[in-house]
Amino acid sequence: KMLGRVLCTVLFLGALQSLAEASQGHISVVLLGATGDLAKKYLWQGLFQLYVDQVSSGHSFTFHGAALAAVEPGQRLMFDVLKKLSCAPDEAPNRCAVLKDQFLKLSQYHQLRTAEDYAALNRDIETLLRQEGLREAGRIFYFSVPPFAYTDIARHINSSCRPARGAWLRVVLEKPFGHDLGSAQQLAAELKGFFREEEMYRVDHYLGKQAVAHILPFRDQNRQFLDPIWNRHHVERVEIVLKETVDARGRTSFYEQYGVIRDVLQNHLTEALLFLIMELPANVSRAEEVLQHKLQSFQSLWGLEKSSAVLGQYQAYASQVQEELQRAQDYVSTTPTFAGVLIRSDSLRWEGVPFLLTSGKALDERVGYARVLFKNRAYCTQSEALRDAGHSQCKAKQIIFYFGHGALNTPAVLVSRNLFQPVMPKDSWKEAVARPDLHVFGQPLSDFYVYSPVKERDAYSVLISNIYHGRKDFFITTENLLASWGFWTPLLDSISHQPPRLYPGGVENQHLLDFEMVSGGLAFTLAEPAELLNPSRQMPSDYRAVESKFRQSPLVSAWSEDLISQLASDMEETAVRSVARSGQFHLALSGGSSPVVLFQQLARHHYAFPWRHTHIWLVDERCVPLTDSESNFFSLHSHLLQSVRVPYFNIHPMPVHLNRRLCVEEDGGTELYARDITALVANASFDLVLLGVGTDGHTASLFPRSENGLEGAPTVVLTESPVKPHQRMSLSLPLINRARQVFVLVLGKGKHDITTLLSRVGREPRKWPISGVSPSSGQLVWYVDYEALLG
Amino acid sequence: KMLGRVLCTVLFLGALQSLAEASQGHISVVLLGATGDLAKKYLWQGLFQLYVDQVSSGHSFTFHGAALAAVEPGQRLMFDVLKKLSCAPDEAPNRCAVLKDQFLKLSQYHQLRTAEDYAALNRDIETLLRQEGLREAGRIFYFSVPPFAYTDIARHINSSCRPARGAWLRVVLEKPFGHDLGSAQQLAAELKGFFREEEMYRVDHYLGKQAVAHILPFRDQNRQFLDPIWNRHHVERVEIVLKETVDARGRTSFYEQYGVIRDVLQNHLTEALLFLIMELPANVSRAEEVLQHKLQSFQSLWGLEKSSAVLGQYQAYASQVQEELQRAQDYVSTTPTFAGVLIRSDSLRWEGVPFLLTSGKALDERVGYARVLFKNRAYCTQSEALRDAGHSQCKAKQIIFYFGHGALNTPAVLVSRNLFQPVMPKDSWKEAVARPDLHVFGQPLSDFYVYSPVKERDAYSVLISNIYHGRKDFFITTENLLASWGFWTPLLDSISHQPPRLYPGGVENQHLLDFEMVSGGLAFTLAEPAELLNPSRQMPSDYRAVESKFRQSPLVSAWSEDLISQLASDMEETAVRSVARSGQFHLALSGGSSPVVLFQQLARHHYAFPWRHTHIWLVDERCVPLTDSESNFFSLHSHLLQSVRVPYFNIHPMPVHLNRRLCVEEDGGTELYARDITALVANASFDLVLLGVGTDGHTASLFPRSENGLEGAPTVVLTESPVKPHQRMSLSLPLINRARQVFVLVLGKGKHDITTLLSRVGREPRKWPISGVSPSSGQLVWYVDYEALLG
Repeated sequence: KMLGRVLCTVLFLGALQSLAEASQGHISVVLLGATGDLAKKYLWQGLFQLYVDQVSSGHSFTFHGAALAAVEPGQRLMFDVLKKLSCAPDEAPNRCAVLKDQFLKLSQYHQLRTAEDYAALNRDIETLLRQEGLREAGRIFYFSVPPFAYTDIARHINSSCRPARGAWLRVVLEKPFGHDLGSAQQLAAELKGFFREEEMYRVDHYLGKQAVAHILPFRDQNRQFLDPIWNRHHVERVEIVLKETVDARGRTSFYEQYGVIRDVLQNHLTEALLFLIMELPANVSRAEEVLQHKLQSFQSLWGLEKSSAVLGQYQAYASQVQEELQRAQDYVSTTPTFAGVLIRSDSLRWEGVPFLLTSGKALDERVGYARVLFKNRAYCTQSEALRDAGHSQCKAKQIIFYFGHGALNTPAVLVSRNLFQPVMPKDSWKEAVARPDLHVFGQPLSDFYVYSPVKERDAYSVLISNIYHGRKDFFITTENLLASWGFWTPLLDSISHQPPRLYPGGVENQHLLDFEMVSGGLAFTLAEPAELLNPSRQMPSDYRAVESKFRQSPLVSAWSEDLISQLASDMEETAVRSVARSGQFHLALSGGSSPVVLFQQLARHHYAFPWRHTHIWLVDERCVPLTDSESNFFSLHSHLLQSVRVPYFNIHPMPVHLNRRLCVEEDGGTELYARDITALVANASFDLVLLGVGTDGHTASLFPRSENGLEGAPTVVLTESPVKPHQRMSLSLPLINRARQVFVLVLGKGKHDITTLLSRVGREPRKWPISGVSPSSGQLVWYVDYEALLG
Repeated sequence: KMLGRVLCTVLFLGALQSLAEASQGHISVVLLGATGDLAKKYLWQGLFQLYVDQVSSGHSFTFHGAALAAVEPGQRLMFDVLKKLSCAPDEAPNRCAVLKDQFLKLSQYHQLRTAEDYAALNRDIETLLRQEGLREAGRIFYFSVPPFAYTDIARHINSSCRPARGAWLRVVLEKPFGHDLGSAQQLAAELKGFFREEEMYRVDHYLGKQAVAHILPFRDQNRQFLDPIWNRHHVERVEIVLKETVDARGRTSFYEQYGVIRDVLQNHLTEALLFLIMELPANVSRAEEVLQHKLQSFQSLWGLEKSSAVLGQYQAYASQVQEELQRAQDYVSTTPTFAGVLIRSDSLRWEGVPFLLTSGKALDERVGYARVLFKNRAYCTQSEALRDAGHSQCKAKQIIFYFGHGALNTPAVLVSRNLFQPVMPKDSWKEAVARPDLHVFGQPLSDFYVYSPVKERDAYSVLISNIYHGRKDFFITTENLLASWGFWTPLLDSISHQPPRLYPGGVENQHLLDFEMVSGGLAFTLAEPAELLNPSRQMPSDYRAVESKFRQSPLVSAWSEDLISQLASDMEETAVRSVARSGQFHLALSGGSSPVVLFQQLARHHYAFPWRHTHIWLVDERCVPLTDSESNFFSLHSHLLQSVRVPYFNIHPMPVHLNRRLCVEEDGGTELYARDITALVANASFDLVLLGVGTDGHTASLFPRSENGLEGAPTVVLTESPVKPHQRMSLSLPLINRARQVFVLVLGKGKHDITTLLSRVGREPRKWPISGVSPSSGQLVWYVDYEALLG
């Protein structure tokens, strides 16, 4: 610590008048992990570039490297790095030498291990400020340390190293920011105890890549051209791709825990996608608006399912893991090193446009890009052979943000010449030189306007500059981070035991990793070659014992996902038959959570469902307004009705909210619904009633020992639920039993006990209302998943 | 007539034992116009082919050529044609000679001019039948005559030439079948007086082209491959194209009246389209089902607008018309000789898929095809340069029914090899020989499975065979015809005065006729070159006199189409502002016919409209059920709500139908609606109210001298209309006047008088309710089209 103070003194006695002239105040930059790989490779260089750029900004700077190592070796290691710093090629050598000399003098090393070390660092900074009569502008703490160290360091900074009142604190955090939604929430909660949201700068270095950083400015500066075409009517697809030739050798201890989705898709590719699809704020230089719009676009994304992804693993990966992590010879890893993921948005702008995110190791080339391919909306009357190729509107139209590497080997923005000549900021982007032989994205390069940066800048130096400028839109906010994990975690969970397809690596992959969109998801184009990693998921061992009857009625049983698919198909078939017979299909649906997946399945995969001729009725409803998120109808609306075209007249929510009050007997809601049914449904016999079962054996909103609805007339009744909201409206059992067809859906381990019980008991509706379901002249089918059936 | 009988006698004394063996009965074929061009070129040859094919069918035949010419010259002319008949190349020369000899002997000529001539023809046939002891199977009358002659001939046939009881009559009609919906209806009505629907066979010879005729069988036989992909999720577009190199020289007297749309699109291309898009019946060989499904697919098509088409005329056309029709030098024709038309369907299967129909004369090549282009749903991970081209899924996928001519110069069916290998009937289609150099539709021919007919057959011989077999699905039924004219007539009307783009003709057209899809319609890709035919539609001469204020409020005025566009845009802007301000947009809409076009405009062109945050209210309603076609809400639903995504909860039809009865005061519908407004609309102040004006000055359902709603409280009222249905529900004037914004839309000449009146009178709501509209703190804007404004 003495040394530190000495250094400071030397320093101020020395060269730097700029310190005294620091009218904007002083900034202390502390780099934690100052001798680590990232610091060596990028961060010190970025800090030096910051100094070079801002030396005349009116701010003065000191740079504090810190690590766990003692002062002596740490200092030496650090200065070995600093001596190798270099200026940009266009910098005058003299100025460079002076600046570098100054930078070295402004830099010192600190051992930061104990609370006392942090306090000492703080005293050093304060002493300097006092001695030199400097006003403090702010402090930057750059965490280039493993995440397990975050909490301790954060606590020390918060308690000992906060800057003077009126000055800002910026802490810069490097990924990984957790491993899934839960761990990210935990880490975020811990950090929140020490820092305010605006103090935290989470780095995704892709946001510093020039082509990525230019997406929003490009969209902004070319609004006149893009406004009419940046939507589902014109965009055919969006591809975000990061292909690597290297594999995970040497990094398997990290990689085996993370895999390609956490390593690349959850962060880098998702961020690039958001820049492309977010609604453009009126002012793209207002960080707050940008962040808000970015966050909103997460909400429009469809949830990912297992079928949204295709996964691969290069063949050598398993042996690399066995070797590097000392695993047994028969150790099997399901960590994907390649993934293609289909993302879809529900927004009016993007509905139906596929977003394809792809990344992998051990592929044929190293390249990264975000590509927007437009639909061909032209018809060229002249035959191709007789056509002047020129700027034909029948050629592909695309806009590509080229991150780097690949055939172009530079960041670039490409715009098809038959689209428009883009507005580009002349000071930072220039038209690239022609390369007549080069083909990219299926076309000669000459078909594009091609721009590359005037000055290529490393992502970290871009980001460090943005930290200095307080541009939070270049960083991942907590909300953004959690939204991203919230989006990706269900997919990660669902594939955690799924064996990826093996691929040889490099050019030999050929078509093995080609994939295509099939019924809402992705699938590899080629069938799996013979050498499978694992047999596919096994049937439960007592599979053969599963009976095809349950309570004397037909039983369909499968894993829940397959069961839902089957149920949806059977519903479609029933609907089509019914419409063929009578011109309409009267469908009564239950609330609850199980049908949600079914609704999504119907909305996304059954386009041939005769929705226009379908009437939607409710089996039961909670006495809450229809717009309440607890309402069965609300859930049905969100997950199904919103996405299909059932005529307004054919939608029949239960009238639980008449005269602006809920389920008041004298408002006659039950009679009204019963009258509607009688008027519209022939013989009050629904074509299909979908039921669920509660753990207490209730079905619809008919609970054990209910006073209403278990017997008597086929009508609509008010009932009481043992759980909130207590008041319910429900079809009565006799009305349900008039149906032509009743499907009962039972899902999940939680239903195993009631399923077992039901398989043994007779018809006792007062004890178990579901046991009273037996259509008088219709058919009952049970859809019970393996977990409910077998526990 | 004597001669006829003599011929017959000679004939039967002569060669043909087959007559006596006619166990299936005798068929008399009468060709009217037997010496005309079509007969010479195709029909006699088709009849001969029928004879060759069916000589052993158990039917016997006689063939009667008929025309206006006297027997002597007519007979000679006819037999000159008959002598040139030829057999298919694979027919044995001996058999051919015998058959031709027999055919000549079975053929005779009749002069058909007077009623007596028809009676004589009938006697000839009856005499023959009696003399030879033949049972009559049926009679075919083939009308190869101009349409003006149809009615007379039909009357004579009906009164004199009907076959014996139990035998069938088939009359074959050649196009044109009218000129628009009205004339087609008239012609159909006339024919209906003489023939039953099942007796009429309207020829569209495209239905006899082998590639067209094979569309349905292909779809049927390849259901397994097509079922999953024959829909909007997989099909990118459908193109139906007929390009000709010839022009209209020598035919302008016909062409100038018809133009390319009536000549080719309304019939040939539409029929081919229907075969592609119709729902496939379970059994494609049942004509009735096929016809029914074909007819249904018309109902799913969006109405055509002026903007649905691009039109061209080759440059030499005008002078050809001037010359051939002796028109003045400055005669200007707006008859299109080129058209591209965008058709869309509303069906679940095809929604959003563009169907492009294109045809033209004086183009670069002669070719016809129907092409289904599939979306590229694949992502190929390997870079193109390193990819094995093979059957890559990233190559285009298409199915083409190639009518003939062009590069292939044969009818053909092409299926991309990366789609599937189609099932083709081996007896009639064979794989075509490889032609390695040939490129079609952007790909080498080797990328396709290519099939061509084993035996190329002329369309007329196919059709004549189908007439013989009674296959009505190869012909145009009256319903089909009227549906087609109903579909095309609005476009034909709207473009009748529109100057087509001029094109030089041939290869020089280059990109001049390229067009593209823009906001729901089509437009030429290149700007109109300098040499315009006509200046575009002129402003009315007193345009400058149009004031920008009307009744002290802002006035927007334009031709109705532009006015509607402007209004829709203004509504969107109002909606966006409102949602930005308050999170929602409360829009109250009027019924009537004017808003229908507006609703369609909103549904099709304003995808950025914030529908999810919009509440839809009704300004007024008729006291009919909501599902009644007279209901304002029903119309709103059909034209707007069905196509956009307004949440169910945000849709507020007027409660005119409570307790299953209409507008009964004690049901309290008006109070209920008023309460809903109060509860949901801040300050009961709608963000936008859209009104119309009746010729009597009424607005909403507030009629002159109404007892309710013209003054008093801002509420909802029941009113009486002078026209049916009399009972109405309406917002009151005071409630309307609370709105932030009121737009009044006035369209059409019929509104000119009231518009003029309103421009002069003050505020007298009891006389003219519309005059009482003046938002107390909001804004009123008038949207009045030129016709209403200027008469």
